[in-house]
Amino acid sequence: MQAALAAARQAAGRGEVPVGAVITGPDGALLAVTGNETEARQDSTAHAELLVIAAAQARRGSKYLEDCDLWVTLEPCAMCAGAIALARIRRLYFGAADQKGGAVEHGPRLFSQPTIHHRPEIYGGLSEAEASQLLQDFFAARRG
Amino acid sequence: MQAALAAARQAAGRGEVPVGAVITGPDGALLAVTGNETEARQDSTAHAELLVIAAAQARRGSKYLEDCDLWVTLEPCAMCAGAIALARIRRLYFGAADQKGGAVEHGPRLFSQPTIHHRPEIYGGLSEAEASQLLQDFFAARRG
Repeated sequence: MQAALAAARQAAGRGEVPVGAVITGPDGALLAVTGNETEARQDSTAHAELLVIAAAQARRGSKYLEDCDLWVTLEPCAMCAGAIALARIRRLYFGAADQKGGAVEHGPRLFSQPTIHHRPEIYGGLSEAEASQLLQDFFAARRG
Repeated sequence: MQAALAAARQAAGRGEVPVGAVITGPDGALLAVTGNETEARQDSTAHAELLVIAAAQARRGSKYLEDCDLWVTLEPCAMCAGAIALARIRRLYFGAADQKGGAVEHGPRLFSQPTIHHRPEIYGGLSEAEASQLLQDFFAARRG
């Protein structure tokens, strides 16, 4: 999660909402690290999770990541939770909860839906204080 | 929808699950056309809808497509429905219903969730017979 937090901090430095994501392989080795790029690309789909899944799949040459784990500093939204299911991620670790936009523990609770094709093991609240402080600082600075 | 169906047919010709998508601008002009590329890219996030949103945003230089409409041959999944909300698409037109993987009229019914940030106007069942025949033929040929 430290690498994901570092990517989130770098994203903040680029003026992006600070969210970072990492995918690790079966042995825990780091396969891909990304930060949110929605502003730079002017692409609302360029969330850290989607980018990190595409990067890990490219590195692996495979569209399934069944033995890989995804670490992200914020609870994934519906788009990203759907992408996590499609990529068959083994375990999802996330930091701050997102009551407004989250789709794992909030809103549609996507992985609890009977039609979901794949359900990772889910561990929320990792480094939660640090992850949410980053977001609070970013939005406070924007408003200030 | 005819351009989306043509893109779906082209996807089938490349060995991809035949789904095609189009984004049109406020005047109805075609901004982007894509087909599913999950096999070619070995990227489970490379659904036609996600690709067409990114392409239209790149063309527009804007991450919001509030005056644009998205046409897709199959009911969007949770990932793509989430992406449609994030991009603030004005109207969603889709072809075949997807009872297993759809997230608009089935499963999480994402646009009916109270936490969804944006809800397009939704029109389902356009050229439904043609869109679902394409999918049926594709999967029958795979099994055959």
